[in-house]
Amino acid sequence: MLDQVIDLDRTFHALADRSRRSMLERLTLGPASVSELARPLAMSLAAVVQHVQVLEACGVVKTAKVGRTRVCRIEPATITAAEQWITDRRQAWESRLDRLGDVLNEEAASQKENP
Amino acid sequence: MLDQVIDLDRTFHALADRSRRSMLERLTLGPASVSELARPLAMSLAAVVQHVQVLEACGVVKTAKVGRTRVCRIEPATITAAEQWITDRRQAWESRLDRLGDVLNEEAASQKENP
Repeated sequence: MLDQVIDLDRTFHALADRSRRSMLERLTLGPASVSELARPLAMSLAAVVQHVQVLEACGVVKTAKVGRTRVCRIEPATITAAEQWITDRRQAWESRLDRLGDVLNEEAASQKENP
Repeated sequence: MLDQVIDLDRTFHALADRSRRSMLERLTLGPASVSELARPLAMSLAAVVQHVQVLEACGVVKTAKVGRTRVCRIEPATITAAEQWITDRRQAWESRLDRLGDVLNEEAASQKENP
Protein backbone atom coordinates (compact mmCIF):
# COMPACT_ATOMS: atom_id res chain seq x y z
CA MET A 1 0.00 0.00 0.00
CA LEU A 2 2.90 2.38 0.64
CA ASP A 3 3.26 3.19 -3.05
CA GLN A 4 -0.49 3.67 -3.52
CA VAL A 5 -2.71 6.55 -2.48
CA ILE A 6 -4.67 5.34 0.53
CA ASP A 7 -8.39 5.70 -0.14
CA LEU A 8 -9.89 6.97 3.13
CA ASP A 9 -13.47 6.76 1.75
CA ARG A 10 -13.06 3.03 1.16
CA THR A 11 -11.10 2.46 4.39
CA PHE A 12 -13.71 4.11 6.64
CA HIS A 13 -16.47 2.32 4.68
CA ALA A 14 -14.69 -0.99 5.36
CA LEU A 15 -14.62 -0.17 9.09
CA ALA A 16 -18.34 0.77 9.11
CA ASP A 17 -19.48 -2.81 9.65
CA ARG A 18 -19.41 -4.76 12.90
CA SER A 19 -18.59 -8.09 11.18
CA ARG A 20 -15.66 -6.60 9.28
CA ARG A 21 -14.38 -4.98 12.48
CA SER A 22 -14.61 -8.32 14.28
CA MET A 23 -12.58 -9.92 11.45
CA LEU A 24 -9.93 -7.22 11.89
CA GLU A 25 -9.94 -7.85 15.65
CA ARG A 26 -9.24 -11.54 14.92
CA LEU A 27 -6.45 -10.59 12.47
CA THR A 28 -4.66 -8.47 15.10
CA LEU A 29 -3.87 -11.84 16.75
CA GLY A 30 -2.15 -13.05 13.57
CA PRO A 31 -2.94 -14.19 10.02
CA ALA A 32 -6.03 -16.38 9.56
CA SER A 33 -7.74 -18.31 6.79
CA VAL A 34 -11.17 -17.23 5.56
CA SER A 35 -12.71 -20.28 7.34
CA GLU A 36 -11.04 -19.25 10.62
CA LEU A 37 -12.48 -15.74 10.21
CA ALA A 38 -15.92 -17.22 9.50
CA ARG A 39 -15.96 -19.56 12.54
CA PRO A 40 -17.23 -17.11 15.22
CA LEU A 41 -19.59 -15.31 12.84
CA ALA A 42 -23.19 -16.30 12.20
CA MET A 43 -22.99 -16.00 8.42
CA SER A 44 -22.26 -18.07 5.32
CA LEU A 45 -18.71 -18.55 4.03
CA ALA A 46 -19.80 -16.67 0.87
CA ALA A 47 -20.80 -13.64 2.98
CA VAL A 48 -17.46 -13.76 4.80
CA VAL A 49 -15.63 -13.89 1.45
CA GLN A 50 -17.52 -10.74 0.37
CA HIS A 51 -16.50 -8.93 3.58
CA VAL A 52 -12.88 -10.01 3.05
CA GLN A 53 -13.07 -8.60 -0.49
CA VAL A 54 -14.22 -5.21 0.91
CA LEU A 55 -11.33 -5.26 3.41
CA GLU A 56 -8.90 -6.22 0.64
CA ALA A 57 -10.20 -3.63 -1.87
CA CYS A 58 -9.29 -0.73 0.43
CA GLY A 59 -5.96 -2.30 1.40
CA VAL A 60 -6.72 -2.87 5.12
CA VAL A 61 -6.20 -6.60 4.57
CA LYS A 62 -3.94 -8.55 2.20
CA THR A 63 -4.71 -12.11 1.20
CA ALA A 64 -2.52 -14.81 -0.32
CA LYS A 65 -3.23 -18.33 -1.52
CA VAL A 66 -1.27 -20.92 0.49
CA GLY A 67 -1.99 -24.31 -1.09
CA ARG A 68 -5.80 -24.48 -1.22
CA THR A 69 -6.28 -21.98 1.62
CA ARG A 70 -6.61 -18.19 1.32
CA VAL A 71 -4.75 -16.61 4.23
CA CYS A 72 -5.59 -13.05 5.35
CA ARG A 73 -3.40 -10.61 7.25
CA ILE A 74 -3.69 -6.97 8.30
CA GLU A 75 -1.88 -4.31 6.26
CA PRO A 76 -0.94 -1.76 8.95
CA ALA A 77 -0.24 1.27 6.69
CA THR A 78 -3.83 1.64 5.52
CA ILE A 79 -5.55 1.45 8.89
CA THR A 80 -2.86 3.69 10.42
CA ALA A 81 -3.69 6.35 7.79
CA ALA A 82 -7.35 6.28 8.90
CA GLU A 83 -6.29 6.56 12.55
CA GLN A 84 -3.97 9.46 11.64
CA TRP A 85 -6.77 11.38 9.92
CA ILE A 86 -8.89 11.27 13.11
CA THR A 87 -5.91 12.00 15.39
CA ASP A 88 -4.99 15.10 13.34
CA ARG A 89 -8.57 16.43 13.59
CA ARG A 90 -8.72 15.73 17.34
CA GLN A 91 -5.41 17.48 17.96
CA ALA A 92 -6.58 20.49 15.91
CA TRP A 93 -9.74 21.02 17.95
CA GLU A 94 -8.02 20.26 21.27
CA SER A 95 -5.44 22.95 20.48
CA ARG A 96 -8.28 25.34 19.56
CA LEU A 97 -10.00 24.61 22.89
CA ASP A 98 -6.68 25.15 24.73
CA ARG A 99 -6.26 28.57 23.08
CA LEU A 100 -9.90 29.41 23.93
CA GLY A 101 -9.21 28.40 27.56
CA ASP A 102 -6.11 30.64 27.65
CA VAL A 103 -8.10 33.63 26.37
CA LEU A 104 -10.86 33.07 28.96
CA ASN A 105 -8.30 32.70 31.78
CA GLU A 106 -6.52 35.90 30.70
CA GLU A 107 -9.84 37.76 30.63
CA ALA A 108 -10.80 36.43 34.08
CA ALA A 109 -7.37 37.48 35.47
CA SER A 110 -7.64 40.93 33.88
CA GLN A 111 -11.15 41.43 35.35
CA LYS A 112 -9.82 40.42 38.78
CA GLU A 113 -7.05 43.04 38.53
CA ASN A 114 -9.37 45.74 37.15
CA PRO A 115 -12.83 44.89 38.49
CA MET B 1 -23.43 11.44 23.55
CA LEU B 2 -21.80 10.28 26.77
CA ASP B 3 -25.02 8.67 27.98
CA GLN B 4 -25.65 6.96 24.64
CA VAL B 5 -23.99 3.93 23.12
CA ILE B 6 -21.71 5.24 20.38
CA ASP B 7 -22.60 3.57 17.08
CA LEU B 8 -19.27 2.82 15.38
CA ASP B 9 -21.00 1.55 12.20
CA ARG B 10 -22.65 4.94 11.70
CA THR B 11 -19.58 6.91 12.81
CA PHE B 12 -17.21 5.19 10.37
CA HIS B 13 -19.89 5.46 7.64
CA ALA B 14 -20.08 9.22 8.32
CA LEU B 15 -16.29 9.48 7.91
CA ALA B 16 -16.35 7.48 4.64
CA ASP B 17 -17.07 10.55 2.51
CA ARG B 18 -14.57 13.20 1.45
CA SER B 19 -17.14 16.05 1.68
CA ARG B 20 -18.19 15.09 5.20
CA ARG B 21 -14.54 14.83 6.23
CA SER B 22 -13.88 18.29 4.81
CA MET B 23 -16.85 19.64 6.84
CA LEU B 24 -15.33 18.10 9.98
CA GLU B 25 -11.97 19.66 9.10
CA ARG B 26 -13.71 23.06 8.93
CA LEU B 27 -15.46 22.40 12.27
CA THR B 28 -12.15 21.69 14.04
CA LEU B 29 -11.53 25.45 13.59
CA GLY B 30 -14.75 26.25 15.50
CA PRO B 31 -18.55 26.12 15.11
CA ALA B 32 -19.96 27.05 11.69
CA SER B 33 -23.33 27.56 10.06
CA VAL B 34 -24.52 25.20 7.33
CA SER B 35 -23.91 27.98 4.74
CA GLU B 36 -20.33 28.41 5.98
CA LEU B 37 -19.80 24.65 5.63
CA ALA B 38 -21.26 24.77 2.11
CA ARG B 39 -19.10 27.70 0.89
CA PRO B 40 -15.92 25.78 -0.15
CA LEU B 41 -17.88 22.77 -1.49
CA ALA B 42 -19.14 22.43 -5.05
CA MET B 43 -22.61 21.21 -4.08
CA SER B 44 -26.10 22.51 -3.35
CA LEU B 45 -27.10 23.68 0.12
CA ALA B 46 -29.64 20.81 0.18
CA ALA B 47 -26.82 18.29 -0.36
CA VAL B 48 -24.79 19.90 2.44
CA VAL B 49 -27.82 19.69 4.76
CA GLN B 50 -28.07 15.96 4.00
CA HIS B 51 -24.38 15.45 4.84
CA VAL B 52 -24.84 17.42 8.09
CA GLN B 53 -27.77 15.12 8.93
CA VAL B 54 -25.53 12.05 8.48
CA LEU B 55 -22.90 13.62 10.73
CA GLU B 56 -25.55 14.51 13.31
CA ALA B 57 -27.28 11.09 13.22
CA CYS B 58 -24.12 9.33 14.42
CA GLY B 59 -23.35 12.04 16.98
CA VAL B 60 -20.09 13.31 15.43
CA VAL B 61 -21.70 16.74 15.04
CA LYS B 62 -24.30 18.58 17.10
CA THR B 63 -26.41 21.34 15.61
CA ALA B 64 -28.47 24.07 17.26
CA LYS B 65 -30.75 26.76 15.89
CA VAL B 66 -29.43 30.26 16.71
CA GLY B 67 -32.04 32.72 15.41
CA ARG B 68 -32.60 31.69 11.78
CA THR B 69 -29.19 30.01 11.44
CA ARG B 70 -28.34 26.36 12.18
CA VAL B 71 -24.94 26.24 13.84
CA CYS B 72 -22.86 23.03 13.76
CA ARG B 73 -20.10 21.98 16.10
CA ILE B 74 -18.02 18.83 16.62
CA GLU B 75 -18.97 16.42 19.41
CA PRO B 76 -15.54 15.08 20.47
CA ALA B 77 -16.68 11.94 22.36
CA THR B 78 -18.04 10.18 19.26
CA ILE B 79 -15.08 10.73 16.96
CA THR B 80 -12.68 9.90 19.82
CA ALA B 81 -14.44 6.52 20.21
CA ALA B 82 -13.77 5.77 16.53
CA GLU B 83 -10.13 6.80 16.94
CA GLN B 84 -9.87 4.61 20.06
CA TRP B 85 -11.19 1.56 18.23
CA ILE B 86 -8.43 1.83 15.61
CA THR B 87 -5.74 2.67 18.20
CA ASP B 88 -6.65 -0.42 20.27
CA ARG B 89 -6.35 -2.67 17.19
CA ARG B 90 -3.05 -1.08 16.15
CA GLN B 91 -1.59 -1.51 19.64
CA ALA B 92 -2.73 -5.16 19.71
CA TRP B 93 -0.94 -6.07 16.48
CA GLU B 94 2.13 -3.98 17.30
CA SER B 95 2.47 -5.84 20.60
CA ARG B 96 2.04 -9.16 18.71
CA LEU B 97 4.81 -8.14 16.28
CA ASP B 98 7.04 -7.13 19.24
CA ARG B 99 6.53 -10.57 20.84
CA LEU B 100 7.25 -12.23 17.48
CA GLY B 101 10.45 -10.14 17.21
CA ASP B 102 11.50 -11.22 20.73
CA VAL B 103 10.98 -14.91 19.86
CA LEU B 104 13.03 -14.57 16.65
CA ASN B 105 15.82 -12.71 18.49
CA GLU B 106 15.93 -15.38 21.22
CA GLU B 107 16.08 -18.12 18.57
CA ALA B 108 18.87 -16.30 16.73
CA ALA B 109 20.82 -15.85 20.01
CA SER B 110 20.33 -19.51 20.98
CA GLN B 111 21.55 -20.68 17.52
CA LYS B 112 24.63 -18.47 17.93
CA GLU B 113 25.39 -20.07 21.31
CA ASN B 114 24.67 -23.63 20.12
CA PRO B 115 25.33 -23.63 16.38
